[in-house]
Amino acid sequence: MATKWVYSFDEGKKEMKDILGGKGANLAEMTNIGIPVPPGFTCTAEACAEYYKLDKKYPEGMWDQVEKKLEELEKKMGMKLGDNENPLLVSVRSGAAVSMPGMMDTVLNLGLNDNSVLGLVKKTGDEKFAFDAYRRFINMFGDVVMGVDHKYFEEVLDTAKSTKGVELDIDLDAEDWKKVCEGYKEVIKNHTGKLFPEDPKEQLRMAIDAVFGSWNIKRAVAYRRIHHITGLLGTAVNVQSMAFGNMGETSGTGVLFTRNPSTGENKLYGEYLMNAQGEDIVAGIRTPNHIDELKKAMPKIYDELVSIYKKVEKHYKDMQDMEFTIQEGKLFILQTRNGKRTAVSALRIAVEMEEEGLLSKKEALLKIDAAQLDQLLHKRLDPIAKEKAEVLAKGLPASPGAAVGKVVFTADRAHELAEKGEKVILTRTETSPEDIEGMNAAQGILTSRGGMTSHAAVVARGMGKPCVAGCSDAAIDEDSCVCKIGDIELKEMDPITLDGATGEVIKGEVPVVDPELSGNFAKLMKWTDEFRKLEIKTNADTPHDAQVAKDFGAEGIGLCRTEHMFFEGERIKAVREMILSEELEGRKKALAKIEPMQKEDFKGLFKVMDGLPVVIRLLDPPLHEFLPKEDKDIQAMAKEMSIDEKKIREIISSLHEFNPMLGFRGCRLGVKYPEISEMQAKAILNAAIECKQEGVKAVPWIEVPLVGNVKEYITIKEIVDKVAEELKVVRGKDYWMGTMIEVPRAALTADEIAPECDFMSFGTNDLTQMTCGFSRDDSGSFLKPYVEQGIYDRDPFQSIDQTGVGKIMQLCIESARKANPKIEIGICGEHGGEPESVKFCHRIGLNDVSCSPFRVPIARLAAAQAVLEQD
Amino acid sequence: MATKWVYSFDEGKKEMKDILGGKGANLAEMTNIGIPVPPGFTCTAEACAEYYKLDKKYPEGMWDQVEKKLEELEKKMGMKLGDNENPLLVSVRSGAAVSMPGMMDTVLNLGLNDNSVLGLVKKTGDEKFAFDAYRRFINMFGDVVMGVDHKYFEEVLDTAKSTKGVELDIDLDAEDWKKVCEGYKEVIKNHTGKLFPEDPKEQLRMAIDAVFGSWNIKRAVAYRRIHHITGLLGTAVNVQSMAFGNMGETSGTGVLFTRNPSTGENKLYGEYLMNAQGEDIVAGIRTPNHIDELKKAMPKIYDELVSIYKKVEKHYKDMQDMEFTIQEGKLFILQTRNGKRTAVSALRIAVEMEEEGLLSKKEALLKIDAAQLDQLLHKRLDPIAKEKAEVLAKGLPASPGAAVGKVVFTADRAHELAEKGEKVILTRTETSPEDIEGMNAAQGILTSRGGMTSHAAVVARGMGKPCVAGCSDAAIDEDSCVCKIGDIELKEMDPITLDGATGEVIKGEVPVVDPELSGNFAKLMKWTDEFRKLEIKTNADTPHDAQVAKDFGAEGIGLCRTEHMFFEGERIKAVREMILSEELEGRKKALAKIEPMQKEDFKGLFKVMDGLPVVIRLLDPPLHEFLPKEDKDIQAMAKEMSIDEKKIREIISSLHEFNPMLGFRGCRLGVKYPEISEMQAKAILNAAIECKQEGVKAVPWIEVPLVGNVKEYITIKEIVDKVAEELKVVRGKDYWMGTMIEVPRAALTADEIAPECDFMSFGTNDLTQMTCGFSRDDSGSFLKPYVEQGIYDRDPFQSIDQTGVGKIMQLCIESARKANPKIEIGICGEHGGEPESVKFCHRIGLNDVSCSPFRVPIARLAAAQAVLEQD
Repeated sequence: MATKWVYSFDEGKKEMKDILGGKGANLAEMTNIGIPVPPGFTCTAEACAEYYKLDKKYPEGMWDQVEKKLEELEKKMGMKLGDNENPLLVSVRSGAAVSMPGMMDTVLNLGLNDNSVLGLVKKTGDEKFAFDAYRRFINMFGDVVMGVDHKYFEEVLDTAKSTKGVELDIDLDAEDWKKVCEGYKEVIKNHTGKLFPEDPKEQLRMAIDAVFGSWNIKRAVAYRRIHHITGLLGTAVNVQSMAFGNMGETSGTGVLFTRNPSTGENKLYGEYLMNAQGEDIVAGIRTPNHIDELKKAMPKIYDELVSIYKKVEKHYKDMQDMEFTIQEGKLFILQTRNGKRTAVSALRIAVEMEEEGLLSKKEALLKIDAAQLDQLLHKRLDPIAKEKAEVLAKGLPASPGAAVGKVVFTADRAHELAEKGEKVILTRTETSPEDIEGMNAAQGILTSRGGMTSHAAVVARGMGKPCVAGCSDAAIDEDSCVCKIGDIELKEMDPITLDGATGEVIKGEVPVVDPELSGNFAKLMKWTDEFRKLEIKTNADTPHDAQVAKDFGAEGIGLCRTEHMFFEGERIKAVREMILSEELEGRKKALAKIEPMQKEDFKGLFKVMDGLPVVIRLLDPPLHEFLPKEDKDIQAMAKEMSIDEKKIREIISSLHEFNPMLGFRGCRLGVKYPEISEMQAKAILNAAIECKQEGVKAVPWIEVPLVGNVKEYITIKEIVDKVAEELKVVRGKDYWMGTMIEVPRAALTADEIAPECDFMSFGTNDLTQMTCGFSRDDSGSFLKPYVEQGIYDRDPFQSIDQTGVGKIMQLCIESARKANPKIEIGICGEHGGEPESVKFCHRIGLNDVSCSPFRVPIARLAAAQAVLEQD
Repeated sequence: MATKWVYSFDEGKKEMKDILGGKGANLAEMTNIGIPVPPGFTCTAEACAEYYKLDKKYPEGMWDQVEKKLEELEKKMGMKLGDNENPLLVSVRSGAAVSMPGMMDTVLNLGLNDNSVLGLVKKTGDEKFAFDAYRRFINMFGDVVMGVDHKYFEEVLDTAKSTKGVELDIDLDAEDWKKVCEGYKEVIKNHTGKLFPEDPKEQLRMAIDAVFGSWNIKRAVAYRRIHHITGLLGTAVNVQSMAFGNMGETSGTGVLFTRNPSTGENKLYGEYLMNAQGEDIVAGIRTPNHIDELKKAMPKIYDELVSIYKKVEKHYKDMQDMEFTIQEGKLFILQTRNGKRTAVSALRIAVEMEEEGLLSKKEALLKIDAAQLDQLLHKRLDPIAKEKAEVLAKGLPASPGAAVGKVVFTADRAHELAEKGEKVILTRTETSPEDIEGMNAAQGILTSRGGMTSHAAVVARGMGKPCVAGCSDAAIDEDSCVCKIGDIELKEMDPITLDGATGEVIKGEVPVVDPELSGNFAKLMKWTDEFRKLEIKTNADTPHDAQVAKDFGAEGIGLCRTEHMFFEGERIKAVREMILSEELEGRKKALAKIEPMQKEDFKGLFKVMDGLPVVIRLLDPPLHEFLPKEDKDIQAMAKEMSIDEKKIREIISSLHEFNPMLGFRGCRLGVKYPEISEMQAKAILNAAIECKQEGVKAVPWIEVPLVGNVKEYITIKEIVDKVAEELKVVRGKDYWMGTMIEVPRAALTADEIAPECDFMSFGTNDLTQMTCGFSRDDSGSFLKPYVEQGIYDRDPFQSIDQTGVGKIMQLCIESARKANPKIEIGICGEHGGEPESVKFCHRIGLNDVSCSPFRVPIARLAAAQAVLEQD
């Protein structure tokens, strides 16, 4: 038997991706389950491979098979290629087993020529449409198949418009388009020395040639090399009949969702237009009808649609977004795909489909985009009110939720007004640790500088507070208390609204709606716990945050940043006193003031977590972060502490660093000033002891930051152990010790470090900065274009760079577990709440992930999905 | 037969390290080759192990064996432990197979008690000496053996001095010391409840107990754990008779070098004193005699010394530094070790020993400390004149050599005066790339800030110019042109001298002597080439540097930093014009001005290297480095370029980065502004083409800096390849492409990067910064104490951190060679000229190392030694 090079759609199946390509296999699949897709056929990827073996000739018999399939297609459609009464038009598309941009684009309306265009006029009764379609086809064919640069066609069109004295394509009439068609054919002749082929079969052969040829063009070869795509035969070619909705009053076109994409309600949702093309619906010139009206207008078609959509939902096990065309009373489904939806809708659909028996729990869990879940946990702008809102500017959607309040420009003022009951929006160029209290007091935060991982963004997410960051259109001047956006000047107490989910800054006050966390949401969250293996902890520094996280299901605190406590109220003074002391005694005196306050903080956390582990990181940031930066603050501090202003400036200057990220911070502080670690150890261990005396179980995990060398870790561990000895508590019973893994060297020497630790936790923010060699704060200038250019698939500060950072994590885990099989390994960077990263953490065998409180549900869902995706 | 627990020195040998410990085996070795070391015996490490098994009891028979060896010893020495006529005194020392600080210190003069001290008085005729020795022994024994804190003994001594109204120990007489002895015994009684043991055998038993016990004290256990020392039995104990040179006119003491340690001359060198202790020579109160005089004074002893020293030199195959004591006409060698020597001496000794047949070439090569070689390549201060010089301050020895000249405070002034023929020393707080021309014009550089790898240090070493960096005692004020050191004020044109090898800053002009690079030096260098496998290249940016390096034996340029060329003369203007252009066209215009200048630079390098490979790195530093920092320079630039000053400040501020090391630099520049890479590619390839037309072979290796992701590299490679296509030159024939490995992520993804590269080169400065997480510029505040505390064995910026950075290098090499077996891998960081790092590079299989010109000989020697050490 001769080799089969061509399959009609009803001959294939979805398993034949390798030879039919992804697109071809999918068309076959839809055909087989009874979806009336416009019929057609596929030339196989095997034919493409053979084509190259034969030095760009078709394999024997292929063209005959194409001609045969074409005949069948003409019969099926009752139309004929090139006919001037009832012309069949087809599309030609490339499609390999792996989707691959870079290869040939689509050619539509193949089959049009001077003869068949008249058939199209007759069928549609629209001469302008027909010749516009014709000239588009010549342009596309000339460009994609014959290799003539698109700009030459543009020149002809421009001339046509300027001759007629009009500016828009739409102002050209049928006669103009006829002339343009002629002009286009001239272009092809002049640039290729060949005539535009009037013979539709010649058109088809040339288009198939072009698809096969595009498999090995530079762009496609480079794409495969860069993406490590190997082992493919070649590309398949899909030839499919075109369907037209504008062939009179028994024709039409529409789009529908099988369930409501906004609310999730299980009810057909969509619209249609009779005697129209798909683009007419999009263009919005005619008002489409609601899909319900089709029931009356074309009851048979409506019933067919309903039966199809149920079949399709059942088959794809998901809500579908479909495009359909009715051509002379015959229904065609042009496309069906999983429909986009809001988070609310996604949740309802998944849970209801499980109830309907359409999905298992596992399947339902996999239907929800974990990242989207965030939208459910915060206040949202009222969707109707929002439509009328005046958007002033758009920044980065740094922390979700809606915030309404009055503009203030300093943290102090935010605090002051909030105490008086005002709702305020803290509006600053950027925020710093000194602003924490003000941020806490505000409804939301707006900054003009900084990225998704700037201080404002990270802290706001931690607090679950809406934040729009890096809104560069807003010129914020804190000194004169003005925020200028275009011509508009916002002054203190002017009302604004932030949408942290979109990054929009809106004028005035927009009504908001509350989140709905019971019902479907609670049900889904319960399901996640049945499957996930990762423990989910939270990053929390206050009892309030810890409680929020626990309510969201957190199973412990994975990161408490002790330095956040250093900024509050009176203690910042003691901290500064410590930094300014040049002698050990002075430092010890200042630390003694901080110790009882820290102890109370820790007791608060232990009490909320009540027996769950609490990872407490020792002091991490560089000391200069605790000192004032502005002249007036320095003066105030000098006065208050009765220290010479010059002295303070000297110390600030001595602490200045060229690259503070890589400077004197983390455990380096404790190695040089052991008294700091000693004070913190005392505060932590005493807090635990007192809790136990009060009947509360406290489980402190003490964590050493920025370790790069096992000897640094041991130095600090010995300080803590000595304190423990004095307090008569025991490591492994009353407290545990471990380290952050954020310096690449620590990951590389995990075999040395792990045996000394009870636990390790990846700090993937710093680990990413050092492994990739870019600073979070400075990478804005190149990282965004990098992601756009595909150098990184995703921003590595948002989603773990699995190839690079992930590699070093894996090396670390492997050697750590080998050296200490009992070690617990987790992650506490911002990535701990990002679904792809959580899944990666599961795959590489971490014990837990820790994230900000409002991301706990996301992490729970992603952790469950990770297990299900591996099954 | 009973187990042998105790060996006299003549029963052991050097191979018995495991049971005799390092020290014991060494004493046995010396005894066996006929060196008259004071006799003694060793209790084995096996005994120690058994001691612990028996719950701290001596194994059966051990004490009997000790007593027996002691008897033999008394017989051999003709003295008796505890005797009041002729008392034998011994030292007791711990010594495991691996040298291990943390265990018990030495106890000297064991055997002294109220009785035997009288014997010592009789023998020495010096009552004060005898009782001083006695009280020292009680103190040491009380502290080390009986665990009484040293401070309590100090209190007794202080009381004795204040009672007598004196301040110095030396003012106490025999009677005073007797009282102190009594006081010390009181201290022991009060703090231990036990009496000081008068029985010398009891003293010995207690001392041996203490040594065994010290094996498992916390400090020693921690040391072994941290240094991964396992598998040892325990510590041995060495008991050795003490020899006294102050027992009358037939006794004496001396030190000698078997060859001259300053010049290397093959002639006995040393001095001695009769009737004296070793410390008398050191103290300098009596003037010692030249060793030659001993020939007349004690001809037999002299002849014995000569015969011993020849034997010892032959045995240890090295020049020896020996201490000897003559006790009542009998010669004892207390110590012999390889003698410290100057580089000049080391070279002469090694070469002459080879000529004498004492050493093979291989052995001679291994005798020289490669790091020391540096001293030979530069001018040195005249040693005699230097003795009288007034040292004003000491900074870091940042770049070797002596420089004499007049103080200037700006690069411009240095340039100006140098052109007039003045010799100047550029004196600045710190230097920046703008100062390059001034540094080049100066004789030497002095800075008050920055470490061994600061800009000044790195550039000076590259230029082979003396530099003293980070001289914090010098307060340099460039504005008022004053350098204040203590009370002295140096003003412009004041003469000073720098010694870059020691870091000394000297007042006035000190005479210098020139280096001697022929003769022995040339001979040694030739030997290195017979053995080494690493290719040695150089880091050079100018034809002059390239020529210097080539003369030193460089086999190519391993790193040409194109940005250094950007600062010169007119071109900095064009560079700034480029940076200030906001449009592509403006940038291209400015780049077109730079291109021909760069081309000429590259031609210069190609011509010097004449067929050897020249690695040219594309633009690397952040753009802000090319813009002025000072107000007046900004104003000048604004005026000169007719650009609004405000505009310039805006651009400077927009380029500001929080962590510039991890910012917008390296290949990130070329990815965002491809026109920069394009210009450089044109300049390089055209330079090579023109060289070939002129009959010079040019071999450009184009290097992409700061790659972290293979796609960055490919982006730049495609730009270069496109230029090459236009110029009709071919990669792999006319030019080669590769990348720096300095971002950890690049090392981790070497499997992706290597197949795209002809070569890779480790930039270990940046790789260290990112892997260890500390910035070179900021690490001063903690890295020095870190090295002092042993957290890092060596400054990782000076010598590769083999455990961490070395690990990632090895991972990289392994996966790179697997993915591309033909790839050439080298190193071009500062480490390329540091001997330990060079050896490491050899061991991990690099193809080449590249270093600054003056380090080429060091790298050649180290590379040869690396091979020989592996044999």
